[in-house]
Amino acid sequence: MSITIAHLGPQGTYAEVATLAVAQWLEQHGQGRPTLCPYSNIAQTLYAVEQGETILAVVPIENSTEGSVRVTLDTLWQLGDIRIQQAWTLPITHALISYAANLEAIATVYSHPQALAQCHDWIQTNTPQAKRMPTPSTANALEQLAAENGAGAIASRRAAELYDLPILAYSINDRPDNCTRFWVLSQTNFVYPDQTPDHMAQLTHTSMAFSLPKNVPGALLQVLQIFAQRDLNLARIESRPTKRVLGEYLFFIDVERGPHDPAMQTALAELARCTETLKVFGQYRVLHVDDCP
Amino acid sequence: MSITIAHLGPQGTYAEVATLAVAQWLEQHGQGRPTLCPYSNIAQTLYAVEQGETILAVVPIENSTEGSVRVTLDTLWQLGDIRIQQAWTLPITHALISYAANLEAIATVYSHPQALAQCHDWIQTNTPQAKRMPTPSTANALEQLAAENGAGAIASRRAAELYDLPILAYSINDRPDNCTRFWVLSQTNFVYPDQTPDHMAQLTHTSMAFSLPKNVPGALLQVLQIFAQRDLNLARIESRPTKRVLGEYLFFIDVERGPHDPAMQTALAELARCTETLKVFGQYRVLHVDDCP
Repeated sequence: MSITIAHLGPQGTYAEVATLAVAQWLEQHGQGRPTLCPYSNIAQTLYAVEQGETILAVVPIENSTEGSVRVTLDTLWQLGDIRIQQAWTLPITHALISYAANLEAIATVYSHPQALAQCHDWIQTNTPQAKRMPTPSTANALEQLAAENGAGAIASRRAAELYDLPILAYSINDRPDNCTRFWVLSQTNFVYPDQTPDHMAQLTHTSMAFSLPKNVPGALLQVLQIFAQRDLNLARIESRPTKRVLGEYLFFIDVERGPHDPAMQTALAELARCTETLKVFGQYRVLHVDDCP
Repeated sequence: MSITIAHLGPQGTYAEVATLAVAQWLEQHGQGRPTLCPYSNIAQTLYAVEQGETILAVVPIENSTEGSVRVTLDTLWQLGDIRIQQAWTLPITHALISYAANLEAIATVYSHPQALAQCHDWIQTNTPQAKRMPTPSTANALEQLAAENGAGAIASRRAAELYDLPILAYSINDRPDNCTRFWVLSQTNFVYPDQTPDHMAQLTHTSMAFSLPKNVPGALLQVLQIFAQRDLNLARIESRPTKRVLGEYLFFIDVERGPHDPAMQTALAELARCTETLKVFGQYRVLHVDDCP
């Protein structure tokens, strides 16, 4: 039976591009040809793997321009035990796709809010007359093109090719080094090729989240000292509201060390003592897609 | 000449409700009757005060369910010197507004993405058949109601009354204690009633943002120790990408101390030495609106 992978659909999203890279890697590592399963939003993609509908899920976690994908963080915190198996970094290069004759004829630009934000300055300069309208995914934006004169969509070049749509401008992101990191997740009992004993030494990252005991001043500082005392550098720290009271937070932390590092393991043990709830999402390595198709 | 206040429009947004509270406070403090100036997005609202189009701006900074308003943080970092004069906390109670006969007849729910997120579980339970469509503000969502059968909008009860629209369900937010904090900002040379010598002792909060020197491990820890050594408790810490490279961040911090506190002042001086860029946005007090109109 082939491995099933949940991702944000429909066909043509950047999440699908990342998932195709993961599928190719799995095939090269003797896992057969995986089956891609598109879902209509990120929360459903994560629920799919937690509920066992699919073996894996691929979800965006962070973009270099727009920052963390909050729905991924918030959903991971709420879910039962699922494990990060790998991270993949994908360069993101956006196209403006439209039947319009030229940029002056664009009345509305549709796309996912993250893509609209990543092309903010380009739109301001090149189609200042255009309204911006958010859609649930970049691929969903393409549905507007046939229905509406003057509609433009921001999506990947690959999406334009898939649906046979004309590209009006290419590479329209404000930052040329725009990229997004994705996590590959499974249930905790699934043995991923990276988690076999032969590969364990390659695992370089640990990701976790925690809440802090209430009314303990300096509780966050105490946690950060656990890392600093061991020279464990934080690759990322992100706060999210607990959603209970204004001013109460969860913290999401990535550390650039894996399970082969004894300092990392003693840090985790100490963390468990001085946090309220600690969730370790996984220990994994980071791979890269060289070029955005 | 009356004080002008920029805010996210059109009429009926929660930002307008917060701005009306600020206007009333200013009038009670001898500033005459202010004029409200609606803008179509949060960035433009902040630019209005930076460019001198208006004297003040009122912008949302944080919601108890959804967390920081990123566009406010990112725009403040980019702008020249503007100063926080006050914070206001507003309870947010959402209504479902629609011409539909009952909840079963709702096909699409329109609202600002934050409002959709704050009513996520209620929509799932009570109108599971409905699609969710984001709009630029809660008040903009109301525009869909006349045009489309089965359209519903999430907005304030006040907005329904303003535009004479029927309320189908009231208090539909998932958390009854849902609230949003707003900042009142001006150019730095404007003397706000709170910043006169008589009032300075009442200022209880300091907000700032900083970037860290590159390739200095533990740089964030060093900053946090400056606060901890002085028992200055952090009310909030939020990371945002620098938008240059994946994994490089700015930090936004709120401390519950004002300018009358010598420890706060020496902390700021020390911070200036161990950060790359430090921006102090202001020292101010927090006021509350008791009830959402």
